[in-house]
Formats: sequence, structure tokens, C-alpha cells
Amino acid sequence: MPTFRAPVVDYRFLFRELFDVASLASLPGYVNADLDVLLTALEEGGRFCEDVIAPLNMPGDAAGCRWEAGDVKTPEGFPAAYAALADAGWLSLACDPAYGGQGLPFTLRFAIDEMLYAANLSFAMYPGLALGVYEGLYAHAGTALKELYLPRVVSGKWAGTMCLTEAHAGTDLGLIRTAAVPNPDGSCLLTGQKVFISAGEHDLTENILHLVLARLPDAPPGTHGISMFLVPKFVPDANGAPGARNAVFCRSIEHKMGIRGSATCVLDFDRATGWLVGEPHKGLRAMFTLMNAARLGVGLQGLGLAGVSYGNAVAYARERRQGRSLSGVKDPQASADRILHHADIRRGLLWMRAFVEGARALATWTAFQIDVELRHPDSSVREEAADLVALMTPVIKAFFTDGAFVATNIGVQTLGGHGYIRDYGMEQFVRDARIGQIYEGTNYVQALDLAGRKLPDGNGRMLRRYLAIVRAELAEAERDPNLAAMANAFGAAVNRLSRGAMHLATKGIANGDEVGAAASDFLQIFGYVAVGHMWLRQARVASQRRVTGGKMDQRFYDAKIRTARYFFERMLPQTETLLVTLMSGAGNVMDFDDDAW
Amino acid sequence: MPTFRAPVVDYRFLFRELFDVASLASLPGYVNADLDVLLTALEEGGRFCEDVIAPLNMPGDAAGCRWEAGDVKTPEGFPAAYAALADAGWLSLACDPAYGGQGLPFTLRFAIDEMLYAANLSFAMYPGLALGVYEGLYAHAGTALKELYLPRVVSGKWAGTMCLTEAHAGTDLGLIRTAAVPNPDGSCLLTGQKVFISAGEHDLTENILHLVLARLPDAPPGTHGISMFLVPKFVPDANGAPGARNAVFCRSIEHKMGIRGSATCVLDFDRATGWLVGEPHKGLRAMFTLMNAARLGVGLQGLGLAGVSYGNAVAYARERRQGRSLSGVKDPQASADRILHHADIRRGLLWMRAFVEGARALATWTAFQIDVELRHPDSSVREEAADLVALMTPVIKAFFTDGAFVATNIGVQTLGGHGYIRDYGMEQFVRDARIGQIYEGTNYVQALDLAGRKLPDGNGRMLRRYLAIVRAELAEAERDPNLAAMANAFGAAVNRLSRGAMHLATKGIANGDEVGAAASDFLQIFGYVAVGHMWLRQARVASQRRVTGGKMDQRFYDAKIRTARYFFERMLPQTETLLVTLMSGAGNVMDFDDDAW
Repeated sequence: MPTFRAPVVDYRFLFRELFDVASLASLPGYVNADLDVLLTALEEGGRFCEDVIAPLNMPGDAAGCRWEAGDVKTPEGFPAAYAALADAGWLSLACDPAYGGQGLPFTLRFAIDEMLYAANLSFAMYPGLALGVYEGLYAHAGTALKELYLPRVVSGKWAGTMCLTEAHAGTDLGLIRTAAVPNPDGSCLLTGQKVFISAGEHDLTENILHLVLARLPDAPPGTHGISMFLVPKFVPDANGAPGARNAVFCRSIEHKMGIRGSATCVLDFDRATGWLVGEPHKGLRAMFTLMNAARLGVGLQGLGLAGVSYGNAVAYARERRQGRSLSGVKDPQASADRILHHADIRRGLLWMRAFVEGARALATWTAFQIDVELRHPDSSVREEAADLVALMTPVIKAFFTDGAFVATNIGVQTLGGHGYIRDYGMEQFVRDARIGQIYEGTNYVQALDLAGRKLPDGNGRMLRRYLAIVRAELAEAERDPNLAAMANAFGAAVNRLSRGAMHLATKGIANGDEVGAAASDFLQIFGYVAVGHMWLRQARVASQRRVTGGKMDQRFYDAKIRTARYFFERMLPQTETLLVTLMSGAGNVMDFDDDAW
Repeated sequence: MPTFRAPVVDYRFLFRELFDVASLASLPGYVNADLDVLLTALEEGGRFCEDVIAPLNMPGDAAGCRWEAGDVKTPEGFPAAYAALADAGWLSLACDPAYGGQGLPFTLRFAIDEMLYAANLSFAMYPGLALGVYEGLYAHAGTALKELYLPRVVSGKWAGTMCLTEAHAGTDLGLIRTAAVPNPDGSCLLTGQKVFISAGEHDLTENILHLVLARLPDAPPGTHGISMFLVPKFVPDANGAPGARNAVFCRSIEHKMGIRGSATCVLDFDRATGWLVGEPHKGLRAMFTLMNAARLGVGLQGLGLAGVSYGNAVAYARERRQGRSLSGVKDPQASADRILHHADIRRGLLWMRAFVEGARALATWTAFQIDVELRHPDSSVREEAADLVALMTPVIKAFFTDGAFVATNIGVQTLGGHGYIRDYGMEQFVRDARIGQIYEGTNYVQALDLAGRKLPDGNGRMLRRYLAIVRAELAEAERDPNLAAMANAFGAAVNRLSRGAMHLATKGIANGDEVGAAASDFLQIFGYVAVGHMWLRQARVASQRRVTGGKMDQRFYDAKIRTARYFFERMLPQTETLLVTLMSGAGNVMDFDDDAW
């Protein structure tokens, strides 16, 4: 069975040396976010994930969820773990103290989320969705709904879901048909069927709050006629306790490739009572508050899975002996060398490491921007941070999940035949990682969001702001002669990103298919540059601290610099081919007769 | 449930127009290999796979194999299908008529194998391994063993296995410990444990023949002390019927990510009776006869899975409606356009198509070389063909299985959320495909075989021979102005292959790690060039026949040329980055402290 070791050491570097996380305490509302508090929380959170959550992961995959006459039984241990999670304060971390939260920064929330997802993705989806409903209600509901529901989510008593997809409406939410008919008392009756609803039914909490997209009778067709409703499984009684059973039922659960401990439900709404959240017909926009948070969360899932797979792959490669090193016997006293000495094994492990540590730095950078966006007193600073978060959201979602799928597969490959056997747990990470490229908007949807929406917005304002930051980092790195080769490689990749953006801007006007055909390659280039930005910064800081002294030991800084080198020499060059294929245009995919397929 | 449609139309093109398969009938021993016979066999074999084998695939995955007190029950329908396969002649196709075979060419065998693997990989592994034992005995056993065993394998009554791996000895077979002690009567008693033995125990046949690697008492250590033995589950009696139960027992079966209908067994040999096959201590070399055939077979598995995933992905994309085409509404009468109109969906589908049709052509080209190697009257022609097959074996194994994993994942992605659900069957292709990169020598082992063994052999003789053929094709294409862009792209990729080979030859001498760090990238470049060679040829032939007329319709030739264009513009450019990373050297993977991991 694989083990999970929390990446606390790396986070210590990120919080104390790579980013000025201590400065968060000076933002209004974050007065309690003392760096020591955050670092202690990190350590305790890591231990909680290691000891309580991770051991349920493999058994949960084997058992899966069980549907019985509309009820869903989650794997053994999940209900107790959910209660423990809430009791220990890991649910309420970043929630508003007004509703029982701790008001700590998202920079910490993201780090804890990575660890929860790494320890047990299936389990961690339940609190993740509960917090999604918290965010949705917090941002869009009126005071009465907030006061009734939010404290119960924050305390872990009630969980929640996002009900968007219908059988014929996945990517295309404009097609949804679920209908909401107003009652005289201001509530509505919802009727329709939702599919692929994660955490749609379970035995973890006494109530489940469904945020449901549906159409009011006067709704215009398409995406501008969708409203958001809150439909609780049990309608709260006068005391706020779960009261009458509402008419929402779990018809079945899906049997999936992975995340088998997460209940994926078909939900039937049969004149279920719900309450409008936010304005009529503006539900899709409201849902995007959750969607964007969820997309970043999915990216963190990828990061977590890649990280736990990496840790287990390294542990195996340190122990397993097969063959002899090609540069000469390394352990003459043993019958074979450890496979860690084989160049291709290292090539794979370093890919994982460079991806994980680069993505972790980028996630932390982005979380920091979220905190600035939420809390900074200066509105222009908030706006710039919001731009950066908006720009990075599709990149983190898609690039992290694509990378996680590569990384977890390297993890399997490192173990050879054992990687393919369920008992070793490495193949579960692959199966669990695979959904990340699909849900919360397929990675193509992310690419279109980036290339077709974020890029043109304000004539490229978001990208310009981001490139200014990137180029400042590049200029700093260019001053350190030790970083010349890396800076050079990175500068070339940044230019490729600009050229790709230019191609989209010029070709995309006349023909939308030019955007469609180039978007995924563009997002990949963006991802490499964004992670490269983090590697350049890590290399620079490590290079400086190696000389001036820092809080980590020399070996840590050395490893950072060498991993950076691997990234720049073996991963970033991918941008070269990506730009070639991006620039090859839409003709080679569109010019194909419909009936020739 | 997915469906399988046999790629008979594409094979008709390959057999009649791309390659001169008709000429095989002029080779000694292939007098019955009339082109019409082969094409009829293709069609009938395709139908058999569609109707009999494919329907067992998803149920077989769901049921898996069951171990009961040493017996293994395969999924329902497998035993009857095995009998039907043998009865219909699909097992004996390429076997020697002296032992009941039909003596047909490997060019046909490969095509039938692709279809069997596509229809049901788990099932097709059983006959595949039986034929592996056939090959091993045919090449290395004495007359008595051959006459006793071969007809029973060919008739489908007895099946077989290859027993190589032990728990501590996977890639490194020099470490195996299973011991063989000679009896006075010439037989031996084998004791040891083998793991990961595919088809090690099952209910398909009345007997199972294990080809086992073990050490004789006087064996030198390492790979030069390994001998090959035949250990039947039941020792044949005087009439050649299954007699005494031999002391080989299935202790357990593995629970795997995929190929769940294939029994992967732990086999205990407890003084089991066996007979030496071939010379003492030369068993590993003998086993390589089987291994090479098995590696090509694994490549065909990848091809098959990619092909069946492609067919189902296209079928879904033709039906599913989501969103509107970015270049304008395509089906105004419907609520949404078919996803086949979305550029990124097409980009994925064309990747699959270009991979599948290119790999299929390359497999057929290689099978043709095998037939020449086996049958041509001129020994120098046979030797050249043998070189080409030896060179291509690791490429087909690794490049096809890597590509199949990409392709089957595109298949999942095309279906979005439905791709992740078991009922749609697309995720099974991914799980089944994943093992191909691992077994029969991991893809890194293939890369080392290519870069460290095949390349230096005779000072690069194999590569020189191959490049001469490739450059002749390039010269032909350069004469057709329609193919100028493709020829140009291909020429650049061929040069990258040469430069990669030169890098290996020069750097590898001083430091073996330089070979290890570059081998996988080199194999990938080789794969792209080898498939590119086939695409250039297909484009050339299609371009000519479109004008002069051929046996296929215009639409077929057009689609070939457009798929070729996609390959040259969007897949082959990958060789650019691969050469950069290959040339980046071993330093960036080897310079990492052991204790810094």
C-alpha cells in the first residue's frame, strides 16, 4: 500500500523564502495569519492527512460507494473522517468567522487542499463540494439563507453539491431543461434530472445542500435563462434542524474508472422545494464563482496526485534492485544496483519532481494572488490580482491535470509490473487523476476560456500584466551568471508564448476555428511558461540563499537548482514543438470531409 | 457498450496498393498465399472478431478471472470462444502444415492479430501465448517434443505460457533462481516460483505447456546460466493424452488495472517434471525467439486498442451534440452542433487516426519483412529483412504502446464524462493499453535494445540499411510536387534521426549513462520517422491513384492524403523537441545526490 508524506518541507521554503507569506498578516482581516500559525497549521494538517485520511484511500477504492434504494453508503471510515476533519478545523479554515470560520488565508487553504487531495481524492471531494456550496451561498445568497445554512456547512454538519450537468447537457449548459416553478411563498418547485453529481447522496452528513441550475417559466432560451437554486435534501425546520424530506432522490450511482469512493449520482428532482440564489436568469454567472474555485481545486487535485505518486515512486526506486548501472556497477556487494541509478528511471522521477515542485509553487503564487484580490485595501492592486487569478485559473486546471496524468503514469512505469497491480496502489493514482482532465469543464473548455475569453479581454490586458511580472523575474535572473542558461531558455519560451498569442489574435478574428485548433497548444505553452516562471524564481532564490544562507540546508537548495536545470533542459523545450503545431493552423484539422470519418 | 468494426477496408488498401502482398505467393512455401485468399481470410477473420470475440470484452472485464483452490475460471464465454477460434482456423493460420498449420504468411497473421487484440485483448492473450510456445518449441525443441506437443497446440487443445519473471527478477533475468535438477531419464525436476505469468492457469484447454527459465546445477551465474524447459501441466501419457498432474500450481492471481480477463498467475513449481528445450545455459537466447515475437505482438495490441478506441470515438462524435462550431452554426435545425465540428475534437480524432493508420501500415510492412526473412530463396535478401525486423521490433513494441496509451486517452476525452464511466467501455481500452508499455520488457528496455544493441551492431549496419530504404521513399516523394511540404518535413525528421544516432555513437562510448538518458527520446524519434515513412508512402500512392485510378474510391485517397498532412504538420514536429532533449545529455538526470531524492 502506498504511503503519503506531506510536502511540509517544500511548503516551508515556499512560505518563508520564495514568497512573502508573512506579509499576508498585514492585510485587513488576516491579522491572525501569522506566519508561524500558518506553518504550524501546515504541519498539523499534513499529519492529519497522513494519519487519518490517507489510510482510507486504497480500501475506499476497493469498496467503492454502494447505492441502496436511493441511499448511498460511502466506504468504511469516510463518515468518521469527515467528522474528524470538521472537528479539527480543516473545513472551516478559510471561512468567514461570522459563520464559524477561522478567516485564514487561501494560501494556507490551497496547501491543505493539496495534501487532502493527495491523501485521498475521493474522500476530499466531499468537503471540497461542501465548501463550494459555502462559496456560492456566501457570494450570492441573501442574509436569511446565509444565516440558516452557512454555519451548518462550516461546522461540517451539512454538505453540498453543484448540480449542473444533464444527460444531454454537459459542456453545453445552455441546453439544460430542469424547470423551476415559483410558489406563492417565494420558494420554487424544481423538476428534472441531473447527472454526474459528485457527492449527490452519501452518509457523511445529516443534510445535503444542492445548488441547482434550472429554468424559471419566463426564462429566455440558452445560457441567459438559467437560474441558481438551493435545494436541501431535508428542508430545515423552524429550529434549523433537518425537517421534511425534500423530493430529490438519488436514482443510481455511476461505476467509474477511478474516484470510486466518491459518489457520482443521478439525481431526480420531482417538484423539489428550492430557493432562488442570486438574481433570476443569472445563475450561470453565479455558478461561475463556484466553477472557478472548483477549477483551481481540480488543478490542486492533479498536483496532489502527482506528488503522492512521486513520493512512492522514489521510495520504490531507492529499494528495488534490478540490473547494473550503465556507467559501471554501483553496489558491488549486492546482486544488482538500485533502479534509482538507471538514467531513464531518474529521467522519469525528475519529470515528476520538476512538475510537482513547479506546480506547487505556481499554486501557492496563485493562492497568494487570491488573498490579495480578496483583502488588499488598494482596489487597483485587487484588480490586478483578480486578472492574474482569472488568467491562471484555466491554466492551473488543465496544465496541472494533464501533467498529473503524465506524472502518475511515470509513477506506474517506475514500478514496472508492480505498478500495474492494484495492491501497490500506483495505478489508482492514474485512474483517479484521469477525471481531472474532464470534469469542471474539459481541458479543451479551459483552453477556449484562456484563448478565446481571457486573452482578448481588454485587448490582452491580463496577459500584458502577467508578462510584465514574468519579464521582471527574467531580468532579475539575468543578473545571476549561474542562471544564464536557464534565463536564456526561459526567455525563448516567453517569446513563444507571445508569438502564440499574436497568432491567436490575428488569425482568430476571421475564423473561430483557428482559435479552436490552436487553443490547447497555447494553453500548454502557457503552462510551461507559468511553471517555468516559478522554476526561475526558485533557482534564483536557491542560488542566492546557497551563498547568503537561508532557512533550508544546502542540499535543499542544490536539489532545487538541479531540478530547475532539468525543467529548463528537458521540459521547457516542449514549447518549441507546441508553437510549431499551434502555428500550423486550422486547415489540417478542419479540411476533412464529414463522411470520410 | 463499444462496438468493434474490423479495419478491412484499410487492409485492402495496404495489401493491394501500398504493398505488393500478392508477391508473397511466389515465395517458397507460400504457394497457397494467393492475394484473394488473404483478403477473404481478412474479411472472415474480421467478422469472427466482431461477432464472436468482441462481445465478450466488456463482460470479461467486469467479471475478471476467478481463482479457486488453484484453478482459474476465465470469464463466461472465453472457453467456447477459444474452441471456436481454433475450429475456424484462426489459431493455425501461420503454423507449419507439418503440424496441422495452414502455412499462411505472417502478413496475414499480423492483420488478424490486430483485429483479435482490438476485439478483446484479455481473450486474445491466451491464443497469443499458445502460439508463443509453438514458436519456441518449433525453433528450439527436438523432433520428439515437437511431434508430441506442436499438433496439440495448433489444434487448440493445449495452450501455453512463458515463465520468466520471479518476484526479485523482472527486467533483470540474470537474477532468477528457479532450479532444475536432472533426472536419470533425461527429464528434470524444477523448483521455484514464477510471478506475473499470463495465462498461467485457466479453463480454456485441457493442458497448459509452460516454457520455464531455470538454472541447471552447473549453471554459471547471471544470464549465461539460464536454460529453457518445457513443463506441461499434465504430463502426456503414452497416447499423448493429458496424464499425470505435474507439480506446478497456481498460488494466486493478480488484481490488475486492466486486462482483467487475462489470468496473471503466481506459479509454484515444486519438483515439477520438465524437459530441456534447446541447449543448456542458452535458454535466455532461445527465449528471445519468443520474446521478439511477443514484443511485436504487444505492439499490435497497442495498434488494435488505439484502432477500436478511434472507431468508437468517431461514432460518438458524429452523434453527440454540444455547443456551436466556432466558425458558425453548422446544424441550425438542431439545438446544438455535433461535436465532430469542434476543432479540438477533430484534432484528437485525427491524432488517433494518423497514429492508427500509420502504425498499421508499419506493422504490415514489418510483417512482410518477416515473411521475406523466413521464405526468400536469396540469403542476402533474408539477412537484410532480418536486420529490418530486428531494428523495428523494439520500435513497434514501445512506440505503438506509448501511442496507444495516448490514443485511447483521446478516446476517453472525446466522450467527456461518459468516457470515464465504465458502461461506455472507453476507459477499459485505457486500462488495457497501459500494460503494453510495461510487459515483455518495459519501453525503456526497448529503447536500450534499440540504442544500445541494435544501433551499434555491425557499426550501424541495421540503421544504414533502413535509412537507405527511407531515403529512397523520400526521393520518390520529392518527385511529386503535391508532396513537397510533406517530403520536406520528413527529410528534416530523418536528419534528426541521424543526428540522434550520431550523438549516441559518440557520447555513449565514454559513458553508458549517455545512452541511458537519450535512449527513450531516440526511440520516439525513430518511431515518428518509421510511421512517417509509411505516411509518405501512403500519401504518394494515394496521390498517384487519385489520378491514375485505383481500387479504392476517391474519398478514401483524399482522406489518406489529409490524414498524412495532419501527421506531417502536427505529429512529426515532435521530433524537434525530442532531439533537443536527447542532445541535452545525461548530466541533467545523473547530477543529483542520492540522498537529495
